[in-house]
Amino acid sequence: TEIEPNFLKNAPGSVLIRVGDTRVVCAASIEDRVPPHLVGKGEGWVTGEYSMLPAAANRRMQREVTRGRPSGRTMEIQRLIGRALRAVVDRKALGERTLWLDCDVIEADGGTRTASITGGFVAMCLALHRLRTDGLIRKPVLVGRIAAVSVGVVAGRALLDLDYPEDSSAEIDMNVVGTDEGGYVEIQGTAETEPFPRAVLDQLLARADHGLALLHARQAEVLGPILAPLLVPKEPGI
Amino acid sequence: TEIEPNFLKNAPGSVLIRVGDTRVVCAASIEDRVPPHLVGKGEGWVTGEYSMLPAAANRRMQREVTRGRPSGRTMEIQRLIGRALRAVVDRKALGERTLWLDCDVIEADGGTRTASITGGFVAMCLALHRLRTDGLIRKPVLVGRIAAVSVGVVAGRALLDLDYPEDSSAEIDMNVVGTDEGGYVEIQGTAETEPFPRAVLDQLLARADHGLALLHARQAEVLGPILAPLLVPKEPGI
Amino acid sequence: TEIEPNFLKNAPGSVLIRVGDTRVVCAASIEDRVPPHLVGKGEGWVTGEYSMLPAAANRRMQREVTRGRPSGRTMEIQRLIGRALRAVVDRKALGERTLWLDCDVIEADGGTRTASITGGFVAMCLALHRLRTDGLIRKPVLVGRIAAVSVGVVAGRALLDLDYPEDSSAEIDMNVVGTDEGGYVEIQGTAETEPFPRAVLDQLLARADHGLALLHARQAEVLGPILAPLLVPKEPGI
Amino acid sequence: TEIEPNFLKNAPGSVLIRVGDTRVVCAASIEDRVPPHLVGKGEGWVTGEYSMLPAAANRRMQREVTRGRPSGRTMEIQRLIGRALRAVVDRKALGERTLWLDCDVIEADGGTRTASITGGFVAMCLALHRLRTDGLIRKPVLVGRIAAVSVGVVAGRALLDLDYPEDSSAEIDMNVVGTDEGGYVEIQGTAETEPFPRAVLDQLLARADHGLALLHARQAEVLGPILAPLLVPKEPGI
Amino acid sequence: TEIEPNFLKNAPGSVLIRVGDTRVVCAASIEDRVPPHLVGKGEGWVTGEYSMLPAAANRRMQREVTRGRPSGRTMEIQRLIGRALRAVVDRKALGERTLWLDCDVIEADGGTRTASITGGFVAMCLALHRLRTDGLIRKPVLVGRIAAVSVGVVAGRALLDLDYPEDSSAEIDMNVVGTDEGGYVEIQGTAETEPFPRAVLDQLLARADHGLALLHARQAEVLGPILAPLLVPKEPGI
Amino acid sequence: TEIEPNFLKNAPGSVLIRVGDTRVVCAASIEDRVPPHLVGKGEGWVTGEYSMLPAAANRRMQREVTRGRPSGRTMEIQRLIGRALRAVVDRKALGERTLWLDCDVIEADGGTRTASITGGFVAMCLALHRLRTDGLIRKPVLVGRIAAVSVGVVAGRALLDLDYPEDSSAEIDMNVVGTDEGGYVEIQGTAETEPFPRAVLDQLLARADHGLALLHARQAEVLGPILAPLLVPKEPGI
Repeated sequence: TEIEPNFLKNAPGSVLIRVGDTRVVCAASIEDRVPPHLVGKGEGWVTGEYSMLPAAANRRMQREVTRGRPSGRTMEIQRLIGRALRAVVDRKALGERTLWLDCDVIEADGGTRTASITGGFVAMCLALHRLRTDGLIRKPVLVGRIAAVSVGVVAGRALLDLDYPEDSSAEIDMNVVGTDEGGYVEIQGTAETEPFPRAVLDQLLARADHGLALLHARQAEVLGPILAPLLVPKEPGI
Repeated sequence: TEIEPNFLKNAPGSVLIRVGDTRVVCAASIEDRVPPHLVGKGEGWVTGEYSMLPAAANRRMQREVTRGRPSGRTMEIQRLIGRALRAVVDRKALGERTLWLDCDVIEADGGTRTASITGGFVAMCLALHRLRTDGLIRKPVLVGRIAAVSVGVVAGRALLDLDYPEDSSAEIDMNVVGTDEGGYVEIQGTAETEPFPRAVLDQLLARADHGLALLHARQAEVLGPILAPLLVPKEPGI
Repeated sequence: TEIEPNFLKNAPGSVLIRVGDTRVVCAASIEDRVPPHLVGKGEGWVTGEYSMLPAAANRRMQREVTRGRPSGRTMEIQRLIGRALRAVVDRKALGERTLWLDCDVIEADGGTRTASITGGFVAMCLALHRLRTDGLIRKPVLVGRIAAVSVGVVAGRALLDLDYPEDSSAEIDMNVVGTDEGGYVEIQGTAETEPFPRAVLDQLLARADHGLALLHARQAEVLGPILAPLLVPKEPGI
Repeated sequence: TEIEPNFLKNAPGSVLIRVGDTRVVCAASIEDRVPPHLVGKGEGWVTGEYSMLPAAANRRMQREVTRGRPSGRTMEIQRLIGRALRAVVDRKALGERTLWLDCDVIEADGGTRTASITGGFVAMCLALHRLRTDGLIRKPVLVGRIAAVSVGVVAGRALLDLDYPEDSSAEIDMNVVGTDEGGYVEIQGTAETEPFPRAVLDQLLARADHGLALLHARQAEVLGPILAPLLVPKEPGI
Repeated sequence: TEIEPNFLKNAPGSVLIRVGDTRVVCAASIEDRVPPHLVGKGEGWVTGEYSMLPAAANRRMQREVTRGRPSGRTMEIQRLIGRALRAVVDRKALGERTLWLDCDVIEADGGTRTASITGGFVAMCLALHRLRTDGLIRKPVLVGRIAAVSVGVVAGRALLDLDYPEDSSAEIDMNVVGTDEGGYVEIQGTAETEPFPRAVLDQLLARADHGLALLHARQAEVLGPILAPLLVPKEPGI
Repeated sequence: TEIEPNFLKNAPGSVLIRVGDTRVVCAASIEDRVPPHLVGKGEGWVTGEYSMLPAAANRRMQREVTRGRPSGRTMEIQRLIGRALRAVVDRKALGERTLWLDCDVIEADGGTRTASITGGFVAMCLALHRLRTDGLIRKPVLVGRIAAVSVGVVAGRALLDLDYPEDSSAEIDMNVVGTDEGGYVEIQGTAETEPFPRAVLDQLLARADHGLALLHARQAEVLGPILAPLLVPKEPGI
């Protein structure tokens, strides 16, 4: 996994994340208004959008705009990205702003949604750092750190970060979003071929925990000293 | 949980399922053709659609047709219903047919997606029974039986079948689709307030397993002698 | 014709109306705002929406949201429902509110639009009664009472409340919305096979008048003492 | 009422109809295929489309394409036009063809839907004549002749062909589609202010019958010798 | 080229322009508000919309509203019309108003977009004259006059105002929008068969300049004394 | 201008083109079918699609799929790209295939449409080379080579390749698509502030010719020996 920060000149926060042959541009933008149902409530919003270039995968896909609406898969992924990021943001501390996280897949070889979340967290931190250095936010905005991995069972073995051929033949496919402290934010496991027993679930979670620890280390390395001031300090004894 | 079979006169399979104050009409229809990518492959398709009446919940919701597209929530639920049902259908045995499962929520008080799957399995069995008695399918079509429950943590306690007030205040919300033999088909758990540790996940799964066993019993009771001939016999030793 | 009031727990007014095998859920909801062109004019709005469950009729119909827009038939019916109800509402007395009437057909066997209006009038009365007991409206809101029937000519005979097989083979199809005092609010007659002479129109209207009288009696029975205080008193001599 | 035939060079049948200040271009086109549900059945289809130029009425209206769908009013009118024309066409004799009737309102001053039907009948005849002279149809296609009028009650008096100011203040608004032999094809009457009694309906129908007779005469005059060969001869004694 | 002013009763400015067999209704309407991004900036907006009647060309075209969106061709033309007109309007002098120019093609035989601009300029002048006589604008609004021509190379010869058969076989197709003083506002040239050299471009521009001069004369003739007071006076020496 | 070939692993032809800070991924894909109107005619189709990532420019733009349709600007650019590429393709030699050219702007700093065409030509050549080495096409497919430049007048001086600040303040904006032999395929010039005289047009074309020559050299360098066999040989004397 490689994360190239500040990949775009204009967006306040952006990265290019590469996991195997998967490449995703994650860009965090700040808008000075919130959706209608939040106006005047003194809190912000965080939302994710996701798209793949038509030629990103192994055969050209039609653009979603041509059909006039995002596919169910896209909407499901967008909702996952948004929920995952909101889980670690103190929306009061963000203030009445919307943080848009755009995840655009340049090349797809499995695990695009988890790469989007892992890279997206870094892009979000970069944008929040910009808000902080511009004096627009004063208090820490993040209550935690997240990353995401895909794990699966292929030919009876639990694997981390499946590439496309593995993913296509996986018996079980699971995405896990977790914090650096071992808590889970989202678990989505699907039996692709046949129902899986509890023991397999346990193996997959162990594999995921291992992968998440590596990603949290990588994110911290890329962010360096930017990260700490964004995080709400833990109260002692909790 | 009450399941009233043959709720509609025209649909080959239908039920009204009631879980607390939640009521869902599940209707299974058979169409003699398949989506374009399956034409000529000798296998069928199973797909789910989901909608709520505008007045089903505690304040009127706009119809999705007015906005011109289903919401992200609806698409996510539809995809879940479809995946869950396809997990137990032998699509070769179904033949080149599409089985549509329409889940329309008349009244909503939590757990509409899991009620849709639990009721939907019964509606599907009724429709497959009709195909069988009409001589249109000869081999068993089902490789297993499914039901679904929602579980959550409210005020620190793991609960089964949350109603709307509980659901709104849940710290963790989890939907589990499982078979009568204890296998999982889908697990989706989301931290609503803060990340949850492994121990909480274990409690929730135990609670879900208990709920699923009750639902499998109820489904079997409603279906009676119809169910067995639809199921592919288990090979000895598996 | 059976009308079950308060079919839904949440909507301020609702009924399940059953005419033959046709079943429609009619739900009246109140929204505290009006369409843009009425803002600040001190009057309210009444509007109807109509939909059929995909499995309501004798073969599954595609959901309209899938096509992205309501069909012409649906829009025509929605407009008819809205006009019919507005014809008996004093919109000044309603105040700056929108009354939404949602008519969702659970099962269809002819006459769904007229059942929607007949049941919808009762649902509207229940919602207006709620507004009244909540002290939100003080003056009577209704200037009259409406019900609706379908009549038709099948094999040369004028019939009331055609079921689906009759409706499909009708030579003439007519919907009549009328008041308890014998006035017409809407007449829509269509020659399905060949033009009809005046004498046939006369027979159909007589048949419709008879059906309307029965429906008005049924509505009054269901509403009981709720109805009178909602009605603007008739001035003597008119 | 003036009807200018062959208003367009390319369409096989077209007219410009003028009723008061209302002007509508009616164009009949022939397409050598039918909607999917009619393929291979040996019969044709007749369908109408309707639109108004944005500047046709007294204030500019938004184009419907901008909103992405026709309005309910437009769909209602299109369905009326199509039903009216199909009522007099022998679709077997037409053969597997679609006759499109496009009614585009250049200027609107009341009665645009009835002008569309009256002018549309003439445009359709011109197109059918073209098919006949080209040898593409051999048998008469029309089982009757239609025209349409709007009538209404304004300030207590029944009037024919209301212009826009009259239409806006009408107490009752009625559209009648009828044949030259006095049969009705469609009757649509709506109480705009209060329910109307049977006696008023009778007056309106009398007024409509008179108007229809005048329009049938005008249509015959414009069509001249073209009309007779298109009409299926009446059997003696009917 | 014929231009019939005041073709519509209601629009503040309108013409019917005829170029060969091409006929376009151009209508200019005034709306007392501007798009969101201009609110409060003290300037107006000018925008064009374009459509063809389905039967305008040599075979019926589907209405764009049926597809739910304007075609790429339509959007390209609308943008061209809007840009061309805005090029000669002082939007400060117009005030916070939107001038809509609707160009609806009744019959098409080549050159509909250039006819729309040439006729549209006259319609716009008529509407601005109305604003002026109503006292709503006081200063001249036009900084110049525009007209537009299509030129092309057919069988090796540069031609003006190609009709449809010529246009279809043109080797090069060029649209030029120009002022009465010889300046260009827009030049769009496309090689339809093979790339064209500079010398051909020069011939086409000469031909276009000649055509534009004729159109400017025709426009001035139709507008008569209305035109001069709308034009910002040229400063001496420029 | 830098052109990185084979930027994507899966697409048969792809480049990343960089012009100043503008970066565009151009991907050419081959589909083994043609649009309906070309089926069975023995010729292929070439079409372009264009999109910008939301964060590509200096403030986040809404995704077009959210609005349900491409903007007018996008459609105009897509049409230009498609026309430009088709101008140099022998569609008979391509066979019944569609060549899709997807141009996705990663970062935008002026000139994205011309960069798309220049890079797109290289991506198309790479895809055609793949077809050729796979033995799917045997004859040369290209009748010429194209590149595109933007030129403009800023503060009275004709400039090549305007960046975003220059582009925003340009008095005239012109895009020129031309061949390596000096022919023009498309010229689009727009006066942004005031009409421009012939002399300015001449300067802009000279500047464009110069830029095109540089780009043709760069393309040839990147393509190397791949290019020649794709080109239809010039007949002597032409």
